[in-house]
Amino acid sequence: MKKRYAVGVDLGGTSIKAALVEQGQGLVRETTRPTYAEEGPQQVITRLGDIVEELIEAAPDHEIAGVGIGSPGAINWERTTVSHPPNFPGWETINLHEALRARFGEKLLVFVENDANVAGLGSAHYGAGKPFDSFIMVTLGTGVGGAIIYRNKIFRGATGAAGEIGHMTIDYEGPFDRSGVAGAIEAYLGQRFLSRHARYRLMTRQDSLLHEMAGPDLRDITPKMLHEAALQGDEGAIEVLAWAGHKLGCVLGAAVNLLDIRKIVVGGGLSAAGDFILEPARKTLKRFVMPGMWDGLAIIQETRGNEVGMLGAAHLVFQYLDEPTHAHDPLS
Amino acid sequence: MKKRYAVGVDLGGTSIKAALVEQGQGLVRETTRPTYAEEGPQQVITRLGDIVEELIEAAPDHEIAGVGIGSPGAINWERTTVSHPPNFPGWETINLHEALRARFGEKLLVFVENDANVAGLGSAHYGAGKPFDSFIMVTLGTGVGGAIIYRNKIFRGATGAAGEIGHMTIDYEGPFDRSGVAGAIEAYLGQRFLSRHARYRLMTRQDSLLHEMAGPDLRDITPKMLHEAALQGDEGAIEVLAWAGHKLGCVLGAAVNLLDIRKIVVGGGLSAAGDFILEPARKTLKRFVMPGMWDGLAIIQETRGNEVGMLGAAHLVFQYLDEPTHAHDPLS
Repeated sequence: MKKRYAVGVDLGGTSIKAALVEQGQGLVRETTRPTYAEEGPQQVITRLGDIVEELIEAAPDHEIAGVGIGSPGAINWERTTVSHPPNFPGWETINLHEALRARFGEKLLVFVENDANVAGLGSAHYGAGKPFDSFIMVTLGTGVGGAIIYRNKIFRGATGAAGEIGHMTIDYEGPFDRSGVAGAIEAYLGQRFLSRHARYRLMTRQDSLLHEMAGPDLRDITPKMLHEAALQGDEGAIEVLAWAGHKLGCVLGAAVNLLDIRKIVVGGGLSAAGDFILEPARKTLKRFVMPGMWDGLAIIQETRGNEVGMLGAAHLVFQYLDEPTHAHDPLS
Repeated sequence: MKKRYAVGVDLGGTSIKAALVEQGQGLVRETTRPTYAEEGPQQVITRLGDIVEELIEAAPDHEIAGVGIGSPGAINWERTTVSHPPNFPGWETINLHEALRARFGEKLLVFVENDANVAGLGSAHYGAGKPFDSFIMVTLGTGVGGAIIYRNKIFRGATGAAGEIGHMTIDYEGPFDRSGVAGAIEAYLGQRFLSRHARYRLMTRQDSLLHEMAGPDLRDITPKMLHEAALQGDEGAIEVLAWAGHKLGCVLGAAVNLLDIRKIVVGGGLSAAGDFILEPARKTLKRFVMPGMWDGLAIIQETRGNEVGMLGAAHLVFQYLDEPTHAHDPLS
């Protein structure tokens, strides 16, 4: 088979990461620029185009079939627009498909998809999800993202928004997440929520290393610090991560019962804490899945880190080329 | 198109209901017998065969393509066996497909599917789910069953067990359901759980009609009585049903966030209470779904009652005849 290439873009609130990807192989070349989202949509679209152009120009001997973009916010069924991405001031509904075609011509395939969904797709074809036809992807970052990979494709639901694990409740009287859902898992594991929990929890633990790492009032505590302290045996930090893992196991149990998809891949920044969070999650998971579905349950750490986003974004292009008329594909 | 017929069986713990079904039309003839599950699997299988034979013999001029069976318990991916149906003593794994083919010959198509799944399929093609390509089915009976209907088919997950909404948690520290899952919706809305809740809740309401209907210690309270009392304006009964509806809304919110399937059809005995339970569920649902998915949310009462089970069971046969090689069909 002829080698196929596509550009995969990970459009984040802080930086735009993009890579040239070879189908079935992985990243060929990678580049990154700050997003400067505060400058508004037109500036970001221009920068997004610039980074794509940079990658295309750096590979004059590669035929590039298209561009896939993983973006926060709501994506339409046709995979052309992004609506209301959090932390992107001034974005209503932006048609990235049109914007890129206007700049690069009608020949270029362009697909936009939710960032957690492309992370799942990337994991399915290049990452920890590769051994599985179907799995649940969870990304633990600023927020908690999710995706359902079913038979190696993104399960998109009725309108393209499926997979919002972060807003599933595990306690109908619990604390509110940013969407106003009580007891949603994001209200425990979202970065700000977890940091705040850690801060107050460790107030009474003067022996914790976090007091050195995050200042005496623990105001600047980050999940990364928790992981570092845990590695040094800090009991308080280990406790916080186990607490987070327990909550994660609860919501994953609910998702497994509903989907009968028993493999879970966990990515995103906090997943770097590995078994400090995943081992407690595994123990809890079993208590929240009905016994008839225990067989084959597994929670696995994503090993390719944030690369899966770019890989999955590029894979949108490959998938379309391989099966342009597949019933699951909204573009057929 | 030539008229097509199949037999749909609803195998319940108390009675076996079966019907001759005409594709696209509905029930032609219906019959029912007690299950006598305590007599063990062989007796039940014989009775199941008898009832199928009765329907076939009563329609000598109809060409019957096959038999579909909705059953409690776990169904295998091939749709041939039932494992451990609750309330069926002595059942390990029983191959109903083989049993019926041995009796009626290899020409007869036989499919077994989970009872909540066939209720969903029946609703999709003959009931309240007909207007929707995709919806979530919930059945409120002895237990709480569920099904995901995606593009007019049963979404089966990785092994065929998807849709277990009843065991999704809404409170990780909540009461345990029969599967040992804390705060599962079945631990609130399952018949015994709801009756017990009503009993204790109404203890202090001496004015409630339930004291007349269910005896002074409220020991024999049933969901049906709650509905009847609610119709007569009984405040206590209305409160109990609203409490149940609130819990239902919580779990449905979690399911909608995960699936992006925004229509929900509610069937099963307790659904007869209609808006006494569904109106509170609708109010709560919105509070547990992220705002980006509010558009098109709806909770609808199943109008064909328990018929949907038989209709959906028969439809397994029609679906196979229409699309024997469809990728979603495990039998292709």
